[in-house]
Amino acid sequence: MQKNTTGLPFDDIRNLFTQLPGPDLASAEAARARDADLTKPSGSLGRLEEIAVWLSTWQGQHPPKVARPMVTVFAGNHGVTAQGVSAYPPEVTQQMVANFGTGGAAVNQICLANDIGLKVFELALEIPTGDITVEPAMDEQTCAATIAYGMEAVAGGTDLLCIGEMGIGNTTIAAAVACGLFGGAPADWVGPGTGVDAEGVKRKADAVRRALDLNRGNLDDPLEVLRRLGGRELAAMAGAIIAARSQRVPVLIDGFVATAAAAVLHALEDTALDHCLAAHRSAEPAHTRLLECIGKQPLFDLGMRLGEGSGAALAVNLVRTAAQIHAGMATFSEAGVSTKS
Amino acid sequence: MQKNTTGLPFDDIRNLFTQLPGPDLASAEAARARDADLTKPSGSLGRLEEIAVWLSTWQGQHPPKVARPMVTVFAGNHGVTAQGVSAYPPEVTQQMVANFGTGGAAVNQICLANDIGLKVFELALEIPTGDITVEPAMDEQTCAATIAYGMEAVAGGTDLLCIGEMGIGNTTIAAAVACGLFGGAPADWVGPGTGVDAEGVKRKADAVRRALDLNRGNLDDPLEVLRRLGGRELAAMAGAIIAARSQRVPVLIDGFVATAAAAVLHALEDTALDHCLAAHRSAEPAHTRLLECIGKQPLFDLGMRLGEGSGAALAVNLVRTAAQIHAGMATFSEAGVSTKS
Repeated sequence: MQKNTTGLPFDDIRNLFTQLPGPDLASAEAARARDADLTKPSGSLGRLEEIAVWLSTWQGQHPPKVARPMVTVFAGNHGVTAQGVSAYPPEVTQQMVANFGTGGAAVNQICLANDIGLKVFELALEIPTGDITVEPAMDEQTCAATIAYGMEAVAGGTDLLCIGEMGIGNTTIAAAVACGLFGGAPADWVGPGTGVDAEGVKRKADAVRRALDLNRGNLDDPLEVLRRLGGRELAAMAGAIIAARSQRVPVLIDGFVATAAAAVLHALEDTALDHCLAAHRSAEPAHTRLLECIGKQPLFDLGMRLGEGSGAALAVNLVRTAAQIHAGMATFSEAGVSTKS
Repeated sequence: MQKNTTGLPFDDIRNLFTQLPGPDLASAEAARARDADLTKPSGSLGRLEEIAVWLSTWQGQHPPKVARPMVTVFAGNHGVTAQGVSAYPPEVTQQMVANFGTGGAAVNQICLANDIGLKVFELALEIPTGDITVEPAMDEQTCAATIAYGMEAVAGGTDLLCIGEMGIGNTTIAAAVACGLFGGAPADWVGPGTGVDAEGVKRKADAVRRALDLNRGNLDDPLEVLRRLGGRELAAMAGAIIAARSQRVPVLIDGFVATAAAAVLHALEDTALDHCLAAHRSAEPAHTRLLECIGKQPLFDLGMRLGEGSGAALAVNLVRTAAQIHAGMATFSEAGVSTKS
């Protein structure tokens, strides 16, 4: 259950979000130096090399390791579902949380196949956030409390955190947040989501347009964008990403909705996501635009658009393997392999 | 060690390569039907859904499973290294085989991290193939024997096979084979390989041009292209891919050189690679063109260009996870989740 109170007003949250630990440059340099001496042509492992350096940098250790990866899924409900923006009824959020509990969802199976921990956090599902076309999603206290809840969700001991969500209606919420942060037309930010038809996509664009109109003049502060246009799972994801930074836990961001939460942090402070990688490019069309706004190149594109942290969970093994390669390969001198002529 | 004789002349090889078992349509249909009933929006797992269907189709079973994946790396040496086409001296082939033996190479670590078997096959490294700029790479007997050797390398019991290679000089060989099969300018097919500079790339293009000129008029038969312009590891990879088909083992093809070997089969029979997926897009520029020639869309692009089967090995976990998701997820009715409104 979500906590209902927090001692943190937005000013304190803002301070937390902008006073972040920086990179461990010594670990980064150690990783680069070792990589250069491994028995392979320089650069031939492509982004796996970059991943190893990134892990070292943000874990603050060399060699990096991924021994206890964790997926956190935050689930929320949204008043905007009244606007006919989803292909599924809102009760599916709760039903899918139950499905997570019994191991039947895709993310359960990905975690099982990849030896990843999974925690699902329900965020007051019985109290949907306000319908953003007619009122703010949350008041300041609720938004701040949910951010704080997300921060506490990052339990000690994990060394790679995946950020995901579940919430019928939340691609509309994510589109509204993206539009509030980065501008552009509402139609640029909406898409089929779980699978609405062309009429449904139009309803989504219209809902985003009305929400933006309602809040015009009050969207200069990214935290106000989150509060007015967002949702509980977005607030909690933002909190979890920041808590991970403080605990030196690198983060894999999942798809469109998770990226929208991360984008709030990027808008507050453009280095706030340096400890994060975008796991994948979602099939939700606006994800590409959103990734460009936060300067992230996703690791892969398998046409996934499920949420649940599924894309981030699927990326764990790439990151873990990159760490294993980096730590376990022989150097040219150890292996007696001739270097470049 | 490579066998030196075979009872198979090219006509028999050609028959083997063109009389292939087809898809198991019943298993494919069972996979599609189950996928449609799993607790996720239709299509939301993107290519993971396609992978599960592909696995069922070519394993000939439903549900599909990946319990004993295997990487086979074939190593060969090439007379064309005399033309200054590689950044590394030819003895590195043998040195890297030794490195595979002691676990120091990237592919060893990928296999270790992902619980994949690894077998490395040396192909008469002490006898490089002929320098293709002045003579055919192999005589027919050697080429046929090496194909047969590759066929025997697919031991019983594996359920997913990765095809990779090691051979200093073999991106030039692969470029020559691709140019012989698909035409175009030699410069279209060469690239930096292990990391040669612009002058080196020019030398590679020149070597390919001379090799093509030398064999002009004798390249209508893809097996002649393989024999004259190829190398032992390419012949063995072609054999392994075909043996896997006969044994109902789906195949992951690694990068540029492995794809060139596969392309020989595709040129012989355009359904010959239906049991194969291209694991990744290599950073070797011509790989994209070559993948288009055989009609394959790679699973990911991490900028890798190492060979050793490394990209294919990295894809194993995606395929295994796709199988786990397919087999393990709940259906809508099992989970009590509402379907699309």
